[in-house]
Amino acid sequence: MTKETTYRIEVQFGDCDPAGIVFFPNFSRWMDAASHDYFLQCGLPPRRKMESLPGCIGVPLLEIHSRFHTSATYGEMLHIRTSTEEWRGKVFVQRHRALRGYFVFITPRTPISTARRLSHASPASGR
Amino acid sequence: MTKETTYRIEVQFGDCDPAGIVFFPNFSRWMDAASHDYFLQCGLPPRRKMESLPGCIGVPLLEIHSRFHTSATYGEMLHIRTSTEEWRGKVFVQRHRALRGYFVFITPRTPISTARRLSHASPASGR
Amino acid sequence: MTKETTYRIEVQFGDCDPAGIVFFPNFSRWMDAASHDYFLQCGLPPRRKMESLPGCIGVPLLEIHSRFHTSATYGEMLHIRTSTEEWRGKVFVQRHRALRGYFVFITPRTPISTARRLSHASPASGR
Amino acid sequence: MTKETTYRIEVQFGDCDPAGIVFFPNFSRWMDAASHDYFLQCGLPPRRKMESLPGCIGVPLLEIHSRFHTSATYGEMLHIRTSTEEWRGKVFVQRHRALRGYFVFITPRTPISTARRLSHASPASGR
Repeated sequence: MTKETTYRIEVQFGDCDPAGIVFFPNFSRWMDAASHDYFLQCGLPPRRKMESLPGCIGVPLLEIHSRFHTSATYGEMLHIRTSTEEWRGKVFVQRHRALRGYFVFITPRTPISTARRLSHASPASGR
Repeated sequence: MTKETTYRIEVQFGDCDPAGIVFFPNFSRWMDAASHDYFLQCGLPPRRKMESLPGCIGVPLLEIHSRFHTSATYGEMLHIRTSTEEWRGKVFVQRHRALRGYFVFITPRTPISTARRLSHASPASGR
Repeated sequence: MTKETTYRIEVQFGDCDPAGIVFFPNFSRWMDAASHDYFLQCGLPPRRKMESLPGCIGVPLLEIHSRFHTSATYGEMLHIRTSTEEWRGKVFVQRHRALRGYFVFITPRTPISTARRLSHASPASGR
Repeated sequence: MTKETTYRIEVQFGDCDPAGIVFFPNFSRWMDAASHDYFLQCGLPPRRKMESLPGCIGVPLLEIHSRFHTSATYGEMLHIRTSTEEWRGKVFVQRHRALRGYFVFITPRTPISTARRLSHASPASGR
């Protein structure tokens, strides 16, 4: 079974836009943080150490696909659940689901946003 | 023929990550700015005026799909070309292409990033 | 004795600039988050509830003054210690100290950044 | 007489917070952009070239001091006027004034924010 990690976000006032809801690029920011956390929890070294490995170019992002099911606002705790959904040769697909946590109020954990990232993890090719 | 607008971005040092390239959530931020610019150029009122229209809920974002073709870095000028690609009832699809401009060096205009946004423009339903 | 709260930040890859260190406006962002957290821990309602109080205009920021003692980078845990340093009529001064926590490595808790914010908490004047 | 440069900002929807005004850390972000622009207009090479100069450590920021005179919102054009106010040995003080431009409406050019940055430009010491 595939590994799933959870990354917690407390939505801040400054993460929200004049409509009072999370400005959506912040979801991408959090999903990137969840990605790095996932790699660390899988035992990979932090990025600055990967850079010094011979032939390692890191994990360039090729594609993102996000669906927004509902909005979130400040004072809420979100849980981002991250897993690897698929391997395609040198490319892999990561799945993130942002779910409401239990910070301010209890709600059923309906997804707030889901996203798939297609990344490239080839150890040997140039960028 | 469909309207296409161009929104210019000068990539800043602080838009870039430790790899020296644009931190990808900034592309979402710029595409949101390009979207607002597109609506203004189409003659729509700014968002704060739309809010006061009866039954108007704004333009909630339903989905984004972005492909990253190459990276960009600070000192570059990007042009984001925005158009509406498709109407599906109360939903429309916007297309953004980030192209290299001519700020620092001349290059063929290969896209740096392309994205499609699915938005909801219903005037009457609740959020 | 004055109340002091602690707000924790895990510095992310995307919080850092091409020099590999925290892009300094993020410190302002975190200090704002620490401020909101401080108010909540003092028993104040969240901002969206304050807005509906008669004559309440929130807590407009008048001035910030920050000193950067050393840099921080991704993978580090920071603790922001927040207290109210001074009351001057309708104005108060908040103090934030960002200290290194113990996330990735143990270090003496030298301050990374300190900041003072001058805010205005008048309940009755217009903005 | 000292050189003064002007950096233009179109405030975006996503730069604003739930109060509908610019989230203040964005002013720091823009002042950093104005700083880089100032250095370029003074004839300095972009940062990535400075890094390769022997003994050059860039321009570490030591201190910022900002006053907020009034708020700004999306749809406004701001002009950031940047100059060097003072040299103190290896340290210099830069001054930024954010003024309302003429994008959406004509106003007297009252400052929206002013900031002083103390930076370190030593060519030879370690960071």
